[in-house]
Amino acid sequence: MGKKVLVLPGDGIGKEVMAEAVKVLHALDGGRSRFDIEERQIGMTAYLQDGTPLSDATLDAADRADAILFGATGGPAYDALPAELRNATGLRLLRKRLALFANFRPAFMFPELADASTLKREVVEGLDLMILRELNGDLYYGEPRGIRELPSGERIGINTMSYAESEIERVAHAGFQAARARRRKLCSVDKANVLEAMLLWREVVTRVSRGYPEVETSHMFVDAAAMALMRNPRQFDVVLTPNVFGDILSDAAAMLTGSIGMLPSASLGAGSKGMYEPVHGCAPDIAGRNLANPLAMILSAAMMLRHSFGLEPEARRVEQAVRGVLAKGWRTADIRQPGTRPAGTREMGDAVVAEL
Amino acid sequence: MGKKVLVLPGDGIGKEVMAEAVKVLHALDGGRSRFDIEERQIGMTAYLQDGTPLSDATLDAADRADAILFGATGGPAYDALPAELRNATGLRLLRKRLALFANFRPAFMFPELADASTLKREVVEGLDLMILRELNGDLYYGEPRGIRELPSGERIGINTMSYAESEIERVAHAGFQAARARRRKLCSVDKANVLEAMLLWREVVTRVSRGYPEVETSHMFVDAAAMALMRNPRQFDVVLTPNVFGDILSDAAAMLTGSIGMLPSASLGAGSKGMYEPVHGCAPDIAGRNLANPLAMILSAAMMLRHSFGLEPEARRVEQAVRGVLAKGWRTADIRQPGTRPAGTREMGDAVVAEL
Ligand SMILES: CC(C)[C@H](C(=O)O)[C@@H](O)C(=O)O
Ligand SMILES: CC(C)[C@H](C(=O)O)[C@@H](O)C(=O)O
Repeated sequence: MGKKVLVLPGDGIGKEVMAEAVKVLHALDGGRSRFDIEERQIGMTAYLQDGTPLSDATLDAADRADAILFGATGGPAYDALPAELRNATGLRLLRKRLALFANFRPAFMFPELADASTLKREVVEGLDLMILRELNGDLYYGEPRGIRELPSGERIGINTMSYAESEIERVAHAGFQAARARRRKLCSVDKANVLEAMLLWREVVTRVSRGYPEVETSHMFVDAAAMALMRNPRQFDVVLTPNVFGDILSDAAAMLTGSIGMLPSASLGAGSKGMYEPVHGCAPDIAGRNLANPLAMILSAAMMLRHSFGLEPEARRVEQAVRGVLAKGWRTADIRQPGTRPAGTREMGDAVVAEL
Repeated sequence: MGKKVLVLPGDGIGKEVMAEAVKVLHALDGGRSRFDIEERQIGMTAYLQDGTPLSDATLDAADRADAILFGATGGPAYDALPAELRNATGLRLLRKRLALFANFRPAFMFPELADASTLKREVVEGLDLMILRELNGDLYYGEPRGIRELPSGERIGINTMSYAESEIERVAHAGFQAARARRRKLCSVDKANVLEAMLLWREVVTRVSRGYPEVETSHMFVDAAAMALMRNPRQFDVVLTPNVFGDILSDAAAMLTGSIGMLPSASLGAGSKGMYEPVHGCAPDIAGRNLANPLAMILSAAMMLRHSFGLEPEARRVEQAVRGVLAKGWRTADIRQPGTRPAGTREMGDAVVAEL
């Protein structure tokens, strides 16, 4: 029996990049049936088909799967759905249902793309940091939430930032373990000078850090961290953040590399099950035109091979194929430079398969 | 009777840069007693003196003042005070007590400093944007807040993001008015795809925008905005944000200019009273060494002359003096470049006075 992979292409370019990642998995497998791939809809595509962005059948499939590949969801039509529907949106519900609390978002500079950043080369060359974003708490899930009417008749919108000690502890452990396997530095981001929830965050991270004396731990307020990321990003190794701050900082960090179309991510829980998705979104502006860069999705599949299936050599093969393709000069539009070879989404996927 | 200016130097380099701003005000006044300057303590300095970071006497003085110049507060000793004390911290209490809900944080590139940014020159040259951060709502003030014990015995930290329609409306009006006087573009930042409070934010900003048809309005999710600020910051004119997102994005935007020691800010309410402070903090690492750049504080005083006192020509004189000093090559350590003339905090202040 192969490993059960649930494939959720989603909306927009999600579909296009997923097709290439699946192609790569098939090529890698070479007919050995190590992967049992099931494809389902999520997001607007699912809504149009089933009347809900995430059906119970898909949730069941997620429960049964050994790992999930996720493309992207969203777009103007999706954002125009009623809030109740979007609040049951696939992505957030899945993250919570599967207790995927640790979202790893690497931001690294591909040497081949060192000039693609808007930052000066000397500031970002060789950049390699890992944002670890907590993914099951904070304003995304806190209760109470909603829009109420005040006695005066005006409305008020409410969300709750909440973190329990155990929620902070488990993601902190994940962070220190990651740091130990990397350059042994961890910077925890909070706003402990203003918010009590963040004061508890800092206290618990500090406590957990004592179990990892080999890791150099620091703490930064989120505003200072945003500045530091732009001024001197190479000072960071692992950056541990609460959910909302991580949403913001991880996009900024990805942007530093100039290759947002290149960056994968992994959402992990306590076991080996994980969900793997590109850092980029569904990009409605270029959807359906064979323009999207599939490499982030393909690299996300490589992360799945490594983290969920323990297939380290296979993960490496995929990653090396991606590097090989870049070295040969293939570039989708997002990373095009003078003197390189233009490729569409499909051509890029084919090039990776050829390189495997 | 002169205009009542309450001067709150605060901690660290706050004291040093404030001394220079006061020097400039005196020089500008030339003995005409147009400014009635009262100095008081705030932050750690006040705590050591009065046992509280912000005494009632200082609050009363703030109530009576026509405008406030604020230096900076904070530092390791301050951050180590008990949370209850820090939660009554000067800055946040003042902002709320005086109903200063509109925090203008310009990020502009001084042509003389075009190479100081970590971003490529072609990305940031001529940058001139205005972050308008809402300053009286959001997680900073929302109730309930605190650290509680759960029935299980573990603790949970809670803060509340809350925005009432009227709170959003008033800052939105301030934003559209500012946009009208600038390049007529406003981008509102939220996370309406996840948070109900932000859904209300978007709805209200959209409604208010109808009264300003001459302003081109757009909306961005905060993660996308963080990316856009780094990829193509010159697309922005006025960027309207809730309190917490504005804390993060305004520091990032300031950093784009490479001259964080150069940027002033204004916190305004419904009337002419305002609080003016540099974007930078109290910088304990360089405090007391005549190293800090006083220009942000001096430019904050210029904003006060303009917005609280209607003294536009005087505001211009100060701003032109600052430009003159830069043109002559004077530079504090934060903006030093080869071939420029080194200046300490006091020398920079003197140079501005000489240039007036
Ligand atoms: C689409 C949205 C709900 C999501 C998030 O905010 O978590 C996305 O921005 C992300 O970062 O994965
Ligand atoms: C010192 C702190 C409370 C303050 C804030 O977060 O508002 C500061 O970071 C700022 O941006 O003025």
